[in-house]
Amino acid sequence: MSFERTDGRALNELRAVKIAPGYLPYAEGSVLIEMGLTKVICSASLDDRVPPFLRNSGQGWVTAEYAMLPRSTPQRKPREVLRGPSGRTHEIQRLIGRSLRAVVDMKALGERTMTLDCDVLQADGGTRTAAITGSYVALALASKRLLKKGRISRSLVLEQVAAISVGLVDNTPLLDLKYDEDSRADVDMNVICTGGGRFIEVQGTAEREPFTREQMDQLLALATRGIEDLIELQKETIARADVG
Amino acid sequence: MSFERTDGRALNELRAVKIAPGYLPYAEGSVLIEMGLTKVICSASLDDRVPPFLRNSGQGWVTAEYAMLPRSTPQRKPREVLRGPSGRTHEIQRLIGRSLRAVVDMKALGERTMTLDCDVLQADGGTRTAAITGSYVALALASKRLLKKGRISRSLVLEQVAAISVGLVDNTPLLDLKYDEDSRADVDMNVICTGGGRFIEVQGTAEREPFTREQMDQLLALATRGIEDLIELQKETIARADVG
Amino acid sequence: MSFERTDGRALNELRAVKIAPGYLPYAEGSVLIEMGLTKVICSASLDDRVPPFLRNSGQGWVTAEYAMLPRSTPQRKPREVLRGPSGRTHEIQRLIGRSLRAVVDMKALGERTMTLDCDVLQADGGTRTAAITGSYVALALASKRLLKKGRISRSLVLEQVAAISVGLVDNTPLLDLKYDEDSRADVDMNVICTGGGRFIEVQGTAEREPFTREQMDQLLALATRGIEDLIELQKETIARADVG
Amino acid sequence: MSFERTDGRALNELRAVKIAPGYLPYAEGSVLIEMGLTKVICSASLDDRVPPFLRNSGQGWVTAEYAMLPRSTPQRKPREVLRGPSGRTHEIQRLIGRSLRAVVDMKALGERTMTLDCDVLQADGGTRTAAITGSYVALALASKRLLKKGRISRSLVLEQVAAISVGLVDNTPLLDLKYDEDSRADVDMNVICTGGGRFIEVQGTAEREPFTREQMDQLLALATRGIEDLIELQKETIARADVG
Amino acid sequence: MSFERTDGRALNELRAVKIAPGYLPYAEGSVLIEMGLTKVICSASLDDRVPPFLRNSGQGWVTAEYAMLPRSTPQRKPREVLRGPSGRTHEIQRLIGRSLRAVVDMKALGERTMTLDCDVLQADGGTRTAAITGSYVALALASKRLLKKGRISRSLVLEQVAAISVGLVDNTPLLDLKYDEDSRADVDMNVICTGGGRFIEVQGTAEREPFTREQMDQLLALATRGIEDLIELQKETIARADVG
Amino acid sequence: MSFERTDGRALNELRAVKIAPGYLPYAEGSVLIEMGLTKVICSASLDDRVPPFLRNSGQGWVTAEYAMLPRSTPQRKPREVLRGPSGRTHEIQRLIGRSLRAVVDMKALGERTMTLDCDVLQADGGTRTAAITGSYVALALASKRLLKKGRISRSLVLEQVAAISVGLVDNTPLLDLKYDEDSRADVDMNVICTGGGRFIEVQGTAEREPFTREQMDQLLALATRGIEDLIELQKETIARADVG
Repeated sequence: MSFERTDGRALNELRAVKIAPGYLPYAEGSVLIEMGLTKVICSASLDDRVPPFLRNSGQGWVTAEYAMLPRSTPQRKPREVLRGPSGRTHEIQRLIGRSLRAVVDMKALGERTMTLDCDVLQADGGTRTAAITGSYVALALASKRLLKKGRISRSLVLEQVAAISVGLVDNTPLLDLKYDEDSRADVDMNVICTGGGRFIEVQGTAEREPFTREQMDQLLALATRGIEDLIELQKETIARADVG
Repeated sequence: MSFERTDGRALNELRAVKIAPGYLPYAEGSVLIEMGLTKVICSASLDDRVPPFLRNSGQGWVTAEYAMLPRSTPQRKPREVLRGPSGRTHEIQRLIGRSLRAVVDMKALGERTMTLDCDVLQADGGTRTAAITGSYVALALASKRLLKKGRISRSLVLEQVAAISVGLVDNTPLLDLKYDEDSRADVDMNVICTGGGRFIEVQGTAEREPFTREQMDQLLALATRGIEDLIELQKETIARADVG
Repeated sequence: MSFERTDGRALNELRAVKIAPGYLPYAEGSVLIEMGLTKVICSASLDDRVPPFLRNSGQGWVTAEYAMLPRSTPQRKPREVLRGPSGRTHEIQRLIGRSLRAVVDMKALGERTMTLDCDVLQADGGTRTAAITGSYVALALASKRLLKKGRISRSLVLEQVAAISVGLVDNTPLLDLKYDEDSRADVDMNVICTGGGRFIEVQGTAEREPFTREQMDQLLALATRGIEDLIELQKETIARADVG
Repeated sequence: MSFERTDGRALNELRAVKIAPGYLPYAEGSVLIEMGLTKVICSASLDDRVPPFLRNSGQGWVTAEYAMLPRSTPQRKPREVLRGPSGRTHEIQRLIGRSLRAVVDMKALGERTMTLDCDVLQADGGTRTAAITGSYVALALASKRLLKKGRISRSLVLEQVAAISVGLVDNTPLLDLKYDEDSRADVDMNVICTGGGRFIEVQGTAEREPFTREQMDQLLALATRGIEDLIELQKETIARADVG
Repeated sequence: MSFERTDGRALNELRAVKIAPGYLPYAEGSVLIEMGLTKVICSASLDDRVPPFLRNSGQGWVTAEYAMLPRSTPQRKPREVLRGPSGRTHEIQRLIGRSLRAVVDMKALGERTMTLDCDVLQADGGTRTAAITGSYVALALASKRLLKKGRISRSLVLEQVAAISVGLVDNTPLLDLKYDEDSRADVDMNVICTGGGRFIEVQGTAEREPFTREQMDQLLALATRGIEDLIELQKETIARADVG
Repeated sequence: MSFERTDGRALNELRAVKIAPGYLPYAEGSVLIEMGLTKVICSASLDDRVPPFLRNSGQGWVTAEYAMLPRSTPQRKPREVLRGPSGRTHEIQRLIGRSLRAVVDMKALGERTMTLDCDVLQADGGTRTAAITGSYVALALASKRLLKKGRISRSLVLEQVAAISVGLVDNTPLLDLKYDEDSRADVDMNVICTGGGRFIEVQGTAEREPFTREQMDQLLALATRGIEDLIELQKETIARADVG
């Protein structure tokens, strides 16, 4: 007897994905990305300064910030403004920043900082991977617009990047976990790949039960295939988008 | 020769207003309110605790939080999470909280707290008044839903409440200021009224030039008429909304 | 049958007001202002820097800070030093700052900042309005002294400014509310006027019951008359004061 | 040729000392203490709670807080509210607290906390020792008032306590240093004694030049004599004061 | 021509590892772990409370804290005490906590919290993996001591856990990176395994160049073999240690 | 019948003292100092900047930081990183800083800052005095190394400095208090002297019972003798140390 997902998806099926470009018109680039019920606004903002360690280096910087609206979850989550970012927030925004830095041409950016703001409107699992997939599109749209306006002389992006979560629930490998699956998973893995299928980051965590090399291989295969679909959707979205 | 507004509106004309109910489905009540380019998400969240000074009082509490997405503005605004809420944020959330408390039946609420979260997606002037107008609808929808589910035994709201800004630009009284008008205004006034036309709060500030009693009367008249339209739109939105 | 105030004052009567100049001799200008039992020290301090947004503008800045001694109240209030300024403190210091900025000649000040420190020794209602009335005198004394010392070439002040609270208690409009009246008021209004009788700020708040246009008119009339007396007392105090 | 003090005092002469009782009428006990130009408000406040480590011990606690008004000094000092108490503030409030705890009968106090708030209006050297001398009087007045009201059954104070600074300037031992002397001193010593002449705290610090045993003996002798006068003045002030 | 490591090690060779038990005698369990020049003190401390979400669950909790002495690095690193933990610190202490929680029998622990403090004396790469390997020994020693004292009735540990870093430098897979290798690596991977060879966490990051599936396989193989040696050393250390 | 110390020492006997140089090899100078069970790592770090008030003065600055490992005590002490330094920490680091500044030739240092980091591995009383005694050696070793490397042209230290605690327990003067003695002491005194026997700081505190002049004299004599031994040990340690 096989495992049944609460939303009826196949084990290796992504949730419905939508990427709406231009969601925050003031930003250089932006999207609203939806993966099932998970919804994240991603925007890319250009600033003419760099952190001190890059001054006079001719190179730019990419950084990310992540937050959840208090009512993005079934129970209201207190804002972090009174206490500072939690450990989880720090971990996620560092992951998003690293992932995007890996595909940006820092010389094409020049001594400027691109900030990716990821704000979660609704959370149903996979917000950090959705944030990476969406941030790439926001960044690519910003690159397109800045090129068009002549503010940069070549594209900022070297490769695409997209991310997905996979996991083991009841010994079954699942693609793109919803919150109810994520909270029951023995193993949770976030995989971030380039358009060319190479890895930028792999984070596999045994939440309950350690995992074998064979299980890891199954999860990586599942993730790789899912990411291919996201890469395709990103490509279409960027091609179609009007960057004004 | 008469004053010309950059968007061609009449001096006493509201921007296009839309109130979309149910924008954050996890919340007890929520809306996306748009006034021209200004867009604010308002949600109402119920918590079964009250602040210490109300314990064993049989009465509830209403409070508000306000934040802007970093890219809600043409220039990116740093998040307040690293420094705590600014003075402006404190002032706005206290104003929203007071305005809503004035129309809530605290005994009907019982010893529970209703939190109104106002998150600005896009800012083009008038975010605090839009937040109040939207929060009322979020609260009324929450009341309707809680009544339907039997969690309260009578409506939480005693009266409607809506808000608008008015101001003097080049000695001309204007209704519903956009950002470009607001930043040039000599006098800026926020007016908050009940459905019955009484005042809950009036805050008039001379940003550049002190104002006379006569000018104040003109501004109040302008605001009062604008609020009547908002009150009407709130009523329709609530009547039409499906609270699940 | 008419309303009786606990201190026997007429409904339109100010408390005994005293303004003692030179209370903190190190400051460029200072007063101790007393309105009945409410006592606030106001000092004006000149600093040779301006906030970044004014650098190279040729213009100065005026800002205010407000604090209460822990035992200015019948119950000791914890200091805010461990938690940062409360929302109430932010709101009050922004109000004081705006009110004074409205009457200062920023070009006469030049690229310097004047800070108004308002420290409450004893609180019996109306501390923010007393702080504004007193701060004006501290500022005018500073202006006089700086002129005398040749550090500025013309007066810093364009007009006088004074403030008072009014409110509705049991449907009765009262001038200059003491704490016991303030805590029972249905409507509380702070009014800030220039020497010429124009408004700088009007903040009317329904604490319990919304108010009508007619009630608002009564309160404004009451406030306007009270402020005239304060303006007179300020004038005499400044004329009389020896600025060393 | 002998050392000349800028205010003409003898080397072993205190500045003019005044202790005005009842300065903050809401407090259980309070004074304004002046030592020359140094002015400190000290108030004693009773709270019906104790820190966790004393719960169910039958004993009370005494603690102190210290702050300077921003314009207590010739140059404005920023408030600590945005950054938290400085190291200097911590050090001073710990010293005041320890000194007063040494003379309080914690069983007579019962499970309650007495907080001594020391707020400096004007600073010309010796604020911490003035704060201790003044706090003792505030505490004794509070004890007298609480006894009179029957809230305690015996006096809270076991002994008097007073404090003074001494120092070496140009190899000359001086009593009660003003700021100009303090800032030039090679050695600075704060001495805190009981009414019976025993030491509660001695803190001698070489600011520039280490000191010998003989110099230390001279300074202690000078301090001891100065404290005797303060003890006398405290006694008279308390005897004379009306505690309402 | 093959790759040469600056310390002459083979590509698949660990640095010299030492684990000295009982380094902080007050702790329930502790070690000083050295991997080459990297030195970390790990201690395990038992507290009789659990976080709120575990109250009345019969289960315990394991958490970790990580810090570096300011002079554990060639350039002094400012302490985090004035700013709060950095993102990197949060990320590391969350990783250590998760890794140890995966091998602890939370029911054997009961409603108590075990805190693992990892303080870096000297940092030459691999501090987080050394902290995990050392923390396991500290925890096992604490378990042994608590068993001996009868404070727990069965061992707290279900399996061993150890960790190592691997990476790609100039396309060469290296085991146990020193700082100079880590700072040049294209790919950096932290691998955490149980005694039985299963994975608890795998974190592979492309610092410069994305990596292929084949490279990942090479790195995992290298790590797995290195961890086997650490597991052996842990076992001997625990067996040999006198837990008093 | 005479007083018996729990570790069998004579009343005027120091605990076993060890000073191990070069404990943190990355630092310009460092030691591990042990006084009985008390163990403190002291390191001296040179930075090429000075605080703003010394810019362009040609003089340097010396400052100190102090922290305890969480498990340096029998009960785990929470880290201060989440709350900022406590009052006790501030007080101790200010004391260490002042003591070392008194013996440093600030012109020889030039416009640079020397930071002394004192990290307590194990605490059994007397950590602040051990930190001073150890910091002097760390500083002297740094001076020796910087001289050898030609980064300074003459020694940074003008005189030695060492510190010890003394106290009255059951009316008995004791040298070098362990924690069990310290916690029972009526009087606690920290004494800091130069190599030439002069005082840099004397801090005597009545923890329970005020003390007489005669008792103070006894304690100072006891401390002075103890410090002579520490001065000797410092001298030997520095002479013997290889500064690389």
